[in-house]
Amino acid sequence: MTTQKIDGASVTTQANVYFDGKCVSHGLTLADGTKLSVGVILPATLTFNTGAPEIMECVGGFCEYKLDGSTEWVKSSAGEKFNVPGNSKFEIRVTEPYHYICHFG
Amino acid sequence: MTTQKIDGASVTTQANVYFDGKCVSHGLTLADGTKLSVGVILPATLTFNTGAPEIMECVGGFCEYKLDGSTEWVKSSAGEKFNVPGNSKFEIRVTEPYHYICHFG
Repeated sequence: MTTQKIDGASVTTQANVYFDGKCVSHGLTLADGTKLSVGVILPATLTFNTGAPEIMECVGGFCEYKLDGSTEWVKSSAGEKFNVPGNSKFEIRVTEPYHYICHFG
Repeated sequence: MTTQKIDGASVTTQANVYFDGKCVSHGLTLADGTKLSVGVILPATLTFNTGAPEIMECVGGFCEYKLDGSTEWVKSSAGEKFNVPGNSKFEIRVTEPYHYICHFG
């Protein structure tokens, strides 16, 4: 099931702009202190580095991703998630806008 | 004063992507039903049409805008707002990411 709304969020009004705008996100903090972000990646192939572990939840469109150390591109579509270890990286290949929620920790 | 956070928001997780990603926003609904959006415009000169009247509040960077029927470009920086009438349009000229809150009605 696709998460269409996140309720009770405190929204950081200034966006995070990565890769000249190929990735744009807004940070959210929930009442219990949980931090996450909602964002979109536009058509591109990008490499992201992680600090904390991340769970990437697709809420629209799709992507293909390749985790560090893997040679396999895996598709992730709306309603699906994938996990990225901390202190790692992943490649992501997008051909139509990929809308996501990034959960940390 | 610049609005850095918006509390108690219900966030639509799928972004609005306009002009091939030169403008990306996320819709918010507050507890009292107020609708607004947080977004960013990347370097470009764009024309937006309004349905409802809009108040554009800058929360980072700056833009220059020109209202319909005006010949004057006016600068709007962080902490400043400008009003756009309903059923109208405006041009916006951005040279560094312009972060905004769009208030409707």
